[in-house]
Amino acid sequence: MNLVQRLTGLVGADHVLLGDAIGARYAQDLWGSDRVGTPTVVVRPADTGEVAAVLAECHRRRQPVVVQGGMTGLVGGGVPDAHEVVLSLERMTAIEEIDVVGATMTVQAGATLQQVQEAAERHGLMFPLDLASRGSCTIGGCLATNAGGNRVLRYGMTRDLVLGVEAVLADGTTLPGLHKLVKNNAGYDLKHLFIGSEGTLGVITRAVLRLQPLPRTRYVAFCGLPGVDAALALLGRLRAALPGSVSAFEAIWDEAYQLILPLRDTVRTPLVGRYPVYALVEIQGSDPVGDTERFVSALNGCDDLITESAVGLEPAEVAALWAVRERIPSLILGGEGPLFGFDVSLPATCLEAYLATVDRELRELWPQVSLQVFGHLGDGNVHIAVITGETTRRRKAEVEHIVYRNVERYHGSISAEHGIGFEKEPYLAYSRRPAEIATMRLLKQALDPHGILNGGRIFATGADRVRIESEVPA
Amino acid sequence: MNLVQRLTGLVGADHVLLGDAIGARYAQDLWGSDRVGTPTVVVRPADTGEVAAVLAECHRRRQPVVVQGGMTGLVGGGVPDAHEVVLSLERMTAIEEIDVVGATMTVQAGATLQQVQEAAERHGLMFPLDLASRGSCTIGGCLATNAGGNRVLRYGMTRDLVLGVEAVLADGTTLPGLHKLVKNNAGYDLKHLFIGSEGTLGVITRAVLRLQPLPRTRYVAFCGLPGVDAALALLGRLRAALPGSVSAFEAIWDEAYQLILPLRDTVRTPLVGRYPVYALVEIQGSDPVGDTERFVSALNGCDDLITESAVGLEPAEVAALWAVRERIPSLILGGEGPLFGFDVSLPATCLEAYLATVDRELRELWPQVSLQVFGHLGDGNVHIAVITGETTRRRKAEVEHIVYRNVERYHGSISAEHGIGFEKEPYLAYSRRPAEIATMRLLKQALDPHGILNGGRIFATGADRVRIESEVPA
Repeated sequence: MNLVQRLTGLVGADHVLLGDAIGARYAQDLWGSDRVGTPTVVVRPADTGEVAAVLAECHRRRQPVVVQGGMTGLVGGGVPDAHEVVLSLERMTAIEEIDVVGATMTVQAGATLQQVQEAAERHGLMFPLDLASRGSCTIGGCLATNAGGNRVLRYGMTRDLVLGVEAVLADGTTLPGLHKLVKNNAGYDLKHLFIGSEGTLGVITRAVLRLQPLPRTRYVAFCGLPGVDAALALLGRLRAALPGSVSAFEAIWDEAYQLILPLRDTVRTPLVGRYPVYALVEIQGSDPVGDTERFVSALNGCDDLITESAVGLEPAEVAALWAVRERIPSLILGGEGPLFGFDVSLPATCLEAYLATVDRELRELWPQVSLQVFGHLGDGNVHIAVITGETTRRRKAEVEHIVYRNVERYHGSISAEHGIGFEKEPYLAYSRRPAEIATMRLLKQALDPHGILNGGRIFATGADRVRIESEVPA
Repeated sequence: MNLVQRLTGLVGADHVLLGDAIGARYAQDLWGSDRVGTPTVVVRPADTGEVAAVLAECHRRRQPVVVQGGMTGLVGGGVPDAHEVVLSLERMTAIEEIDVVGATMTVQAGATLQQVQEAAERHGLMFPLDLASRGSCTIGGCLATNAGGNRVLRYGMTRDLVLGVEAVLADGTTLPGLHKLVKNNAGYDLKHLFIGSEGTLGVITRAVLRLQPLPRTRYVAFCGLPGVDAALALLGRLRAALPGSVSAFEAIWDEAYQLILPLRDTVRTPLVGRYPVYALVEIQGSDPVGDTERFVSALNGCDDLITESAVGLEPAEVAALWAVRERIPSLILGGEGPLFGFDVSLPATCLEAYLATVDRELRELWPQVSLQVFGHLGDGNVHIAVITGETTRRRKAEVEHIVYRNVERYHGSISAEHGIGFEKEPYLAYSRRPAEIATMRLLKQALDPHGILNGGRIFATGADRVRIESEVPA
């Protein structure tokens, strides 16, 4: 029996897609990556048991597999090569249980982040992970890539928001792990192997998420600041004054902020003046009266750092100030000519020097270069768009080397949030030493000895990756 | 050249201890485990390079090694077998850097938790991990065992408090990883392999710890409650009313609390009445005036749950109320006749049923059995002391099977905080499925192919563990 027949036997004919029946959404990331794949077989299992059966079959045949969630990762990790079977978790969207007393949610990997957020809110709880792609990204994808987002400052990365993970290894072994325990030191914590390893060590099928009380207040201030040092000092002082309350600290550098100004009709520009850096601070709390007072008073205590500010206390004002920050990425992407986007993190104290160095080195090659910078300053994570002024993407690698070489110099990470996938694989050595990459390979070899899972993502798997292309019909 | 000569060449004659030069502290845990080891060679490297050289040498010779920190783990993980070289990190105690702006501390593994706490406080910051053994336990040991303690509720386990880990693999390969980055998705997060794996996958040599602002207020309430359900409801309501502020929620069951009463001269008994369960709630904040008001008002809002309470707002009162909780373990240990101690965690909603079942099953065998229970109720983690009334420890295994069989039944963990070590190795299957244990073995085999590191801890390593006892002089 050939592979397609076997897969059909495992998941049903309706759930093995071939040829023209395969939609464009299986071929590439929703945005952010140039890479376009060639999906030839898409398998859509109904549950963990079917995932395990599909993987066992592929393992036996040494058939490469790529796992797909919402395809919002930006690094091409889910983009299929022609020889890969696409394993899509799109049918596994059930929210299986919400435990209100224990504040946990058990969910299948294919549920979207937004489904999870809304289900938690219906029970007076919050799943604090939040990303712009909340409506498309899946919780399995968030886990596999250890997604970050807007509220890492207070609640942590996805890794920190999960109690239990069920995963299927390349050979079809199911690892149960749907614990609800905050404290569990009974042997190795296997979930951390699967979180953030981008589907290369196993397929996450279900998870137990940790929920938080739903905050009752959400206030925001949009501040014009003289520079990054002032922004970091502001953050430090607000965190000390309002411990446990600061839920976001986003920054926009002036060159990116200027993109908002032509939109004055639809987006309210909150400040009169123009400043080197703008910061959006959010606090979340539970005391509508007291929180207002404390927030305003904490901001007043930072008068020496803030040149101008607009405070949002009503939900509509809060939304309007967030809208400024949230419009920036699409405005940058919508500009003329090609741009090169980056997602890096640096020790916060090195950020200003890092950006100055990158700007200087780029300017030596492209005197007209524009750097549009924004991001999650509270975590040292900035998104950088480099517009060289050229009309092609031919010199992409030169830009990348400058950006990543300086990440190495300042002890940063070439990927703060989005992972490595295919896009950053050539640059991994700028963030990780050879001994670390060799150790990753050891783990990959141990858990996926035939190298069938998401091969080539993060690091090249080399000879251990056997391709049986003849089995997959075109 | 024999092993001792080689080790002497690597770390110097003063730092290879043999025979009578080896103190009793290298032979057993400070308390909690019956196991007494036979240290025959102790090596005390000065730095990461020496650790790497010692391990490379032992790997080459297939010489088993056991790593020692403060010996406060309670599960015998550091207790040496006669054929093992003891690798003690006691000389690596430097606090290498405190980055006040970035709120990080870089520290060597052998520093004690208390040294770390005090160094942070001197800079107006806090390292929130806190355990009773703070003066003896080392930060490397806390990392290797993913230590928990009193403030997990708010700040998480040790795993959550660390940004970077430097570790040496069994073959002497050093994995650099002293990142200061909150967000770093550049490939596998290797530090989570070493955290909580009890020294079986590598030796943690240095770490970058994440510090928090030092709280300005610390208030406590000691509450008498009608039962566990009321305690959990109280916790839920206080966390909702004071989000991000509740830093500890400790519980003492009445049978354990009664041990305090004879000490009325030295320990203030905070309550007049007697209740099924007592809870100690702590909040930490930054606003001396507002926090008092909010705390008292939140407690008043829980009048229907709390039968009687004593509130501590002044430091001396806070210390007096904590003293009640902190005296319990030593009072239990100081009782007459043998006791059997446990450190388990359960989903909070199952805790009451779990304890009732264990009590009933034990009582069938020992009608006079006494269960003294206390612990970190906020995390579902309780410490249970079982006193059967017998005068020997002969029937230890019977007690353990009852306690752990019911952990399995209620989906709990046989080790909340202390790890598995030797003590709980026979019971691992009550918390982990065969596929999970097999995966742990795969990882062990990949990273420590000769099985030289902390062999036999967590799970039996079997045939891959080669003992070259003849090399080690008696």
